[in-house]
Amino acid sequence: MTGTAIGIDDLPVRDELRGKSPYGAPQLDVPVQLNTNENPYPLPEPLVRRIAERVAEAARTLNRYPDRDAVELRTELAKYLTRTGKHPVGMENVWAANGSNEVLQQLLQTFGGPGRTAIGFEPSYSMHSLIARGTGTGWISGPRNEDFRLDVEAAARAIAEHAPDVVFITSPNNPTGTAVDAGTVLALYEAAQEAKPSLVVVDEAYVEFSHRDSLLPLIEGRPNLVISRTMSKAFGAAGLRLGYLAAHPAVVDAVQLVRLPYHLSAVTQATALAALEHTDTLLGYVEQLKAERDRLVAELRAIGYEVTDSDANFVQFGTFADAHTAWQQILAHGVLVRDNGVPGRLRVTAGTPAENDAFLEAVRALKKEQQA
Amino acid sequence: MTGTAIGIDDLPVRDELRGKSPYGAPQLDVPVQLNTNENPYPLPEPLVRRIAERVAEAARTLNRYPDRDAVELRTELAKYLTRTGKHPVGMENVWAANGSNEVLQQLLQTFGGPGRTAIGFEPSYSMHSLIARGTGTGWISGPRNEDFRLDVEAAARAIAEHAPDVVFITSPNNPTGTAVDAGTVLALYEAAQEAKPSLVVVDEAYVEFSHRDSLLPLIEGRPNLVISRTMSKAFGAAGLRLGYLAAHPAVVDAVQLVRLPYHLSAVTQATALAALEHTDTLLGYVEQLKAERDRLVAELRAIGYEVTDSDANFVQFGTFADAHTAWQQILAHGVLVRDNGVPGRLRVTAGTPAENDAFLEAVRALKKEQQA
Repeated sequence: MTGTAIGIDDLPVRDELRGKSPYGAPQLDVPVQLNTNENPYPLPEPLVRRIAERVAEAARTLNRYPDRDAVELRTELAKYLTRTGKHPVGMENVWAANGSNEVLQQLLQTFGGPGRTAIGFEPSYSMHSLIARGTGTGWISGPRNEDFRLDVEAAARAIAEHAPDVVFITSPNNPTGTAVDAGTVLALYEAAQEAKPSLVVVDEAYVEFSHRDSLLPLIEGRPNLVISRTMSKAFGAAGLRLGYLAAHPAVVDAVQLVRLPYHLSAVTQATALAALEHTDTLLGYVEQLKAERDRLVAELRAIGYEVTDSDANFVQFGTFADAHTAWQQILAHGVLVRDNGVPGRLRVTAGTPAENDAFLEAVRALKKEQQA
Repeated sequence: MTGTAIGIDDLPVRDELRGKSPYGAPQLDVPVQLNTNENPYPLPEPLVRRIAERVAEAARTLNRYPDRDAVELRTELAKYLTRTGKHPVGMENVWAANGSNEVLQQLLQTFGGPGRTAIGFEPSYSMHSLIARGTGTGWISGPRNEDFRLDVEAAARAIAEHAPDVVFITSPNNPTGTAVDAGTVLALYEAAQEAKPSLVVVDEAYVEFSHRDSLLPLIEGRPNLVISRTMSKAFGAAGLRLGYLAAHPAVVDAVQLVRLPYHLSAVTQATALAALEHTDTLLGYVEQLKAERDRLVAELRAIGYEVTDSDANFVQFGTFADAHTAWQQILAHGVLVRDNGVPGRLRVTAGTPAENDAFLEAVRALKKEQQA
């Protein structure tokens, strides 16, 4: 087909999309990829076989629509949360979608949208603002301390001032790494209820790697508090695209007003259920990654870098006069890390011990070059 | 968890969602289910085995994010379209998402949204208006003839009057069943370009069952024309949730500005690729269903029902003084059909010969009761 001289801006797209580029990390073919916070451990072979089994079973009725309400999957996710989150939840508290991105999109379609606003405390997970834009929700960039921790008072003031409809709290925060304590979330929840009331979303995508417990128990008695989770990281299943939330049953009912019917395929449900059968093995990998993460923090500090405390499977380090140049210099050593646009800082994912050694070698060399 | 006395309306949801119910056909446990236009033929066992194989392969790297651009899948979909659509298209013309609902949602986020409008000619696929609402796009209900065909002049006048940003043309139309000819689409495309210009989406979810060819060749030289398709029906894979579109490459670039990154899981991509390997077998089932559809039309007319011509895998029939009562009477015979809210009409999906016989027996009995 010809006519490719026509570009996006020749089409009747929305004005705010003109001149924009699609979101996504550069996908480069590099030996050591530590840029997207993936779990470096492939699923164990018994789990791969179990996935094939359960998917074959699902494929035998693939001509039928999937379970629209994903009842079995939500039941098993609720059991996992109950077991690990120190708070009992049931199927009625849980909702699942294609990645936590879709969960967050459904929440913004329900509680945000045109004429409404959402706030996040930046730098934080950049999809929060992008999904806000995609759903017509106004975005407010809230403050964060110079050490990248949440400043409770400044954050509460920003909530009081802007009275946003949705408040994002990311714990552990991405790309900086630090978790938030319960007191902070409670203070901001109170501020948000007073200001509006608004929905408070605690994005716990990386919580299994944290030194702190999940904030799941806080949903009790707080119908406007949502915990967002994913199987991408701790379950080593970024390719599966399975995100979920825990909240009051009324929130689960509400997102069903905007969810696309049958949004979650039968193969996704079958694969996620298989992975949940192998929770213990997968959480064992998480323990290894936590140890490697702690090693990265310690060794980076020993080399002389400034490192933000991390509760996640990644570490923010610096400082660099020009982070992008440093990113390229590390890439020249065959190691891909992430430049999230935080001035003077880069982010590295905890990989396998060998991958982390390659990374440490690269940044050791970089430090020497800088000092030379 | 307690506190379920709190309901949706106690949460800070958007005003327009208050009092609404989630979309979806009633899911009843009935022997003969002919209500959601599913393909009645399960995937053949060799394909089930191939899906298990390809998914197992994908599961071995499930810890990594999926191919964000789904290049292999879009290449194979392009080959399928080229082969069956009488027009050569390449990967750059094709985009895929979780069901055609997500494709349409991405199109409305890009070309519709707050402050913009979309038109459909109703009765038609009800998700068009629902996804419009979900994306903040204003909805205009356009006209249709009393015989449920598109009235080109009335439709063009409505486009000229409202100057919508997005125009939906469903061919074959759901729930009525009739396909649209190329001349009609061209006339409405011209009207839409003159009025705005706007994006014209031809929803061909059921086109493989049509007496007419796909309107795919019309995209040539028309960058604002999109053909939307799905693997749910002809490929017998409603449980897979794989929708796609064909259009000018600029449209494919544009939807990537709003798509959630990594929206299409590795297991979905693997399963769809396996199904595409078995296209010939699956299109053989389509031929059987077309014959059964034609039999349903002929027998319903012989019984004395009024039947709308059908190019789809379903048939609209009537008339009933009260369609919902008739729906219940058919259900009492153990056959589930669909009440789409079209006054005096019901819709039945073409099932297996045995299912269709059960349906025909039920409506024959109903006719006798009506005449008694």
